[in-house]
Amino acid sequence: MRSACISVKLGIRERLSPSCGSNMLSCWLSRLCRGFSTPTGRITHLSRGSLSRTLVLSSQRRIPEFSSFVARTNTCGELRSSHLGQEVTLCGWIQYRRQNIFLVLRDFHGLVQVVIPQEESAAAVRKILCEAPVESVVRVSGTVISRPPGQENPKMPTGEIEIKVKTAELLNSCKKLPFEVKDFVKKTEALRLQYRYLDLRSFQMQYNLRLRSQMVMKMREYLCNLHGFVDIETPTLFKRTPGGAKEFVIPSREPGKFYCLPQSPQQFKQLLMVGGLDRYFQVARCYRDEGSRPDRQPEFTQIDIEMSFVDQTGIQRLIEGLLQYSWPSDKDPVVVPFPSLTFAEALASYGTDKPDTRFGMKIIDISDVLRNTEVGFLQDALSKPQGTVKAICISEGTYLKRKDLESIRKFAADHFNQEVLPVFPKASRNWNSPVAQSILEEQRSGLIRLMEIREDDVVLLTAGEHKKACSVLGKLRLECADLLEARGLVLRDPTLFSFLWVVDFPLFLPKEENPGELESAHHPFTAPHPSDIQLLYTEPEKVRSQHYDLVLNGSEIGGGSIRIHDAELQRYILATLLKEDVKLLSHLLQALDFGAPPHGGIALGLDRLICLVTGAPSIRDVIAFPKSFKGHDLMSNAPDSLPPEELKPYHIQVSWPANSEAEKSSLNQPYCPES
Amino acid sequence: MRSACISVKLGIRERLSPSCGSNMLSCWLSRLCRGFSTPTGRITHLSRGSLSRTLVLSSQRRIPEFSSFVARTNTCGELRSSHLGQEVTLCGWIQYRRQNIFLVLRDFHGLVQVVIPQEESAAAVRKILCEAPVESVVRVSGTVISRPPGQENPKMPTGEIEIKVKTAELLNSCKKLPFEVKDFVKKTEALRLQYRYLDLRSFQMQYNLRLRSQMVMKMREYLCNLHGFVDIETPTLFKRTPGGAKEFVIPSREPGKFYCLPQSPQQFKQLLMVGGLDRYFQVARCYRDEGSRPDRQPEFTQIDIEMSFVDQTGIQRLIEGLLQYSWPSDKDPVVVPFPSLTFAEALASYGTDKPDTRFGMKIIDISDVLRNTEVGFLQDALSKPQGTVKAICISEGTYLKRKDLESIRKFAADHFNQEVLPVFPKASRNWNSPVAQSILEEQRSGLIRLMEIREDDVVLLTAGEHKKACSVLGKLRLECADLLEARGLVLRDPTLFSFLWVVDFPLFLPKEENPGELESAHHPFTAPHPSDIQLLYTEPEKVRSQHYDLVLNGSEIGGGSIRIHDAELQRYILATLLKEDVKLLSHLLQALDFGAPPHGGIALGLDRLICLVTGAPSIRDVIAFPKSFKGHDLMSNAPDSLPPEELKPYHIQVSWPANSEAEKSSLNQPYCPES
Repeated sequence: MRSACISVKLGIRERLSPSCGSNMLSCWLSRLCRGFSTPTGRITHLSRGSLSRTLVLSSQRRIPEFSSFVARTNTCGELRSSHLGQEVTLCGWIQYRRQNIFLVLRDFHGLVQVVIPQEESAAAVRKILCEAPVESVVRVSGTVISRPPGQENPKMPTGEIEIKVKTAELLNSCKKLPFEVKDFVKKTEALRLQYRYLDLRSFQMQYNLRLRSQMVMKMREYLCNLHGFVDIETPTLFKRTPGGAKEFVIPSREPGKFYCLPQSPQQFKQLLMVGGLDRYFQVARCYRDEGSRPDRQPEFTQIDIEMSFVDQTGIQRLIEGLLQYSWPSDKDPVVVPFPSLTFAEALASYGTDKPDTRFGMKIIDISDVLRNTEVGFLQDALSKPQGTVKAICISEGTYLKRKDLESIRKFAADHFNQEVLPVFPKASRNWNSPVAQSILEEQRSGLIRLMEIREDDVVLLTAGEHKKACSVLGKLRLECADLLEARGLVLRDPTLFSFLWVVDFPLFLPKEENPGELESAHHPFTAPHPSDIQLLYTEPEKVRSQHYDLVLNGSEIGGGSIRIHDAELQRYILATLLKEDVKLLSHLLQALDFGAPPHGGIALGLDRLICLVTGAPSIRDVIAFPKSFKGHDLMSNAPDSLPPEELKPYHIQVSWPANSEAEKSSLNQPYCPES
Repeated sequence: MRSACISVKLGIRERLSPSCGSNMLSCWLSRLCRGFSTPTGRITHLSRGSLSRTLVLSSQRRIPEFSSFVARTNTCGELRSSHLGQEVTLCGWIQYRRQNIFLVLRDFHGLVQVVIPQEESAAAVRKILCEAPVESVVRVSGTVISRPPGQENPKMPTGEIEIKVKTAELLNSCKKLPFEVKDFVKKTEALRLQYRYLDLRSFQMQYNLRLRSQMVMKMREYLCNLHGFVDIETPTLFKRTPGGAKEFVIPSREPGKFYCLPQSPQQFKQLLMVGGLDRYFQVARCYRDEGSRPDRQPEFTQIDIEMSFVDQTGIQRLIEGLLQYSWPSDKDPVVVPFPSLTFAEALASYGTDKPDTRFGMKIIDISDVLRNTEVGFLQDALSKPQGTVKAICISEGTYLKRKDLESIRKFAADHFNQEVLPVFPKASRNWNSPVAQSILEEQRSGLIRLMEIREDDVVLLTAGEHKKACSVLGKLRLECADLLEARGLVLRDPTLFSFLWVVDFPLFLPKEENPGELESAHHPFTAPHPSDIQLLYTEPEKVRSQHYDLVLNGSEIGGGSIRIHDAELQRYILATLLKEDVKLLSHLLQALDFGAPPHGGIALGLDRLICLVTGAPSIRDVIAFPKSFKGHDLMSNAPDSLPPEELKPYHIQVSWPANSEAEKSSLNQPYCPES
């Protein structure tokens, strides 16, 4: 932990974040544009893995040709001293102008300085370059020359050269902008979304979208070219799936008949396995109508994979190889295999099924140490049959202020109705808490031994039933990390990508609205754990599944399972255990009868993964045209009202809510963006 | 022409068609599975083109590893004499069994013969292999051995070897099938679609889908890795575009507000150009609600491309390179550049804007030759100011029977209300047609010279206004080709892929319902031809556009244009000429004001392209789960009815047509597939 803090403090300077200056971003973009690759035969990540046979593609990749087929010879950002003396034609946007002497021209690749000619014979060129407003598009032709000694700009990738212009053409003039296209100019997200086409010009958005494209391309190479997967498109005009309450509906031209937009290609990919297309993948658009949920999108993308004749380990090794192969070369390489925890272990140690394993602070059961405690609420808890006392040790927790600890206690009380006790077993400082003082000396030393407590550490105690106590401490663990980082410590190395498999989930959960009935913990096609098959018929709530989640830095970025390929078992689970209407799935059940191979798969959430890789604050920053959290396109004003005659072919009409007459009459009012 | 016929007759034996036996398909699939590539450093297509720098990726590609991560060592189809003596584990479907001695096991890669052990000690293995029904899934382990001399099967890629089995496992048994999974077993398309997962097991469908995946992968390599394009996903939950009457609507949770599924990412890709993402592509899902149209799908896929700073030639060279690079290596290489015709030339010579240039039979204006004709309907036509006489020369037309010619005349009369006259200028044979006989000898010899008529040729004459006469003959040209091919001639070489650019389309067309008004010939963002800009303000109907279509073998497989990047011009065309509601496009118009670069692009229809490349009879054969021509998924029964409470969150209700009460009450009846 402690050594990580130091390295992090160094590492963070290199971290890509929206507050970086555009020069630094321009450097990063420039590296990105050279590909995740090297012009010479450098050894790639894969050679560190087990797939050394598959090196050819990546190690010999060339830099793409960015100026083929178009009216430029080079990009602005690629020019270096090696181009000195070359005649070039550049197209770009005017980033800024200095005293009518210099112009900085920008394209996706970077910035370059253009010298505005001062001589009388170049009056026409000078006029164009001096009069065009900022963000106008121009084409210039000229010679790459050295900057005069002392005027080089080492922070700029093109800082050693400039362009001596011969001709210039104004391709399009720019009107007054709603905001400046400079990364350091702050603007609200609503404004950025409304003028998304301007926001996309920022180096940050260019970096995010280009990195996304390149990572997906590498994933395709890995799946298609190296491992023989077939990229198959599945329909998005489908029908309602059982329990698919979050599916958008699409009226058809047949009265009362609706398509639905699927939440995933789950059924289709299983049917492809039955169809003998035994290694399927798709970068699949999926849809989920969740109303307003922060950091979710009504349409999203997943890397969707299914294989026949595979087991859990096979899928895990495939995905580890996939991430290793596609990982950006400007990040630390991915180390495989990823560690794995069972669902039960994850809950016990981290209080969640998606632990952030970048830092320790694990939950420890200290029931035995405190068996004879005199602290009232601990005593109460331990006297119950399932009662436990749990704790986390906050490294350097003495950096927390009194009000931090108060907010933690309040958080636990408000959200979990749970008492939490901070103690400082080794600190000289104490809070005069009578409760803390009633912990006996032998208990204190027991705790210090068990939890490896050091000077400056703080311990948070709570008590109660295992799952609840763990959940509370799991949340507090993250809260404490946030608080400590707000106080200047660095617990979560921003250059660290900590992958984790979580396995052995329960197959069923009690229904929230009716705990006597079961629902699938994930989906009804998940195969039970082979050791637990018999429990299906006796204690189904105890059956573990062959589901696996992939977690990165505390976010679930993927999930999958081995599927049921036996029609009888599938029918039993759907009809008898889940009480679903099997008619809706008759095609799938029938398919399992006709020689369905054993199969399994996984889906990775691409938006979330790219968000974590780029360090973006929101998935909206890795999507070209995202919806707002209310599901609106703030640029085009979608969704929009339609005249009733356009609904007629679909045999639907709007049921206006009683209180929305006012709203209805205001539909044609000018659009007012949400804040 | 004549020499083409001969080569075709040889070529056709190699053509992939659904009537081929599965052995031959298995060979083709085996080639496909080895990739569009060569294990050694063979020179690829590109070296014949202009892009020699970009060879690295393709020439060094390896065969993908099809058996990584799964419970087999090899695929059934890959085993050869070089594997002799190897211990292998195979997973596959039982294709057939012969006398309980041999079993043929199938996977996507091909077939392999398994010897069922006869000795007593292998009774368990024998029982599994003899009792499992056909299409059951089994795993076998054993040794690759030579077939006994004389028992090799040269038609089978694995025909030199067989598997001596040691262990076998029944992975899933198969119930009685609705049809046999053998290519030679004919079944209706409705049955194939209902049990699509069984149909997908055919070698033909495996070939089609795998070829599609590989071609798209190569396109991605070309665009991303070689030319620096960025793969960007654009939203499919969008809003109605002006004139977008064919867009599916999706109710949102806001009363009266609807998303629409876009017909193409047109607006988004232009906005990306404004956003400085200057080389965009996407394999984009698009939607068009056209009701029941044969060989159309409500959702389809296009290779969607947009570039900044490009002109028409730039896009054309890009696409030629793209097709050349991605073209399957088992086809003749693509020759670039593609020929080009203006819209006017295409109409004049082929009577259509998508000419099939695999064969001649061009339309020729013979007005001058027949200026003094005594044939009544020709005389009538020529006496009018725009009157013309046109003809096509049907090579070897004397192969046509009298009833063929009658059907041609009837077709012209029925569909175009147009008279057509067949004449045999050089043939001894004649039809005693008094009209034909009234063509004078000097006219006859004039025709023979002008049209290069040979013995056995037939000429079809028609008369009237230029466009109409050309259209009729354009249709008849294709009709004649069909009829001649039905008589055993081969006009259209099935191995030939004849690409053609068609350019200089009109920018506007008169509206069908109101010819006094104009509508866009393609879409309102298409830039006018630079030479015709001034005509926009005087005679807009005469303005040519910078639109280009890509035609392959008489099918339009792509179209695009240079776009308008000037906001004023775009406003003038939308508001003044097209009288559209510009409010719906205010975001796009505003974007053009803020430094939009000149840009253009294209979209290729992927389904149609793959259909032509594979020679499939329908685009449904290159889509994994297509809809029927009525827009139904015959497998899952989509679209389907929904309970009213599931429509409530979307504030819609069904408007039942007056006469559909019966239909409504029958909604829960068992499903009856369409025929």
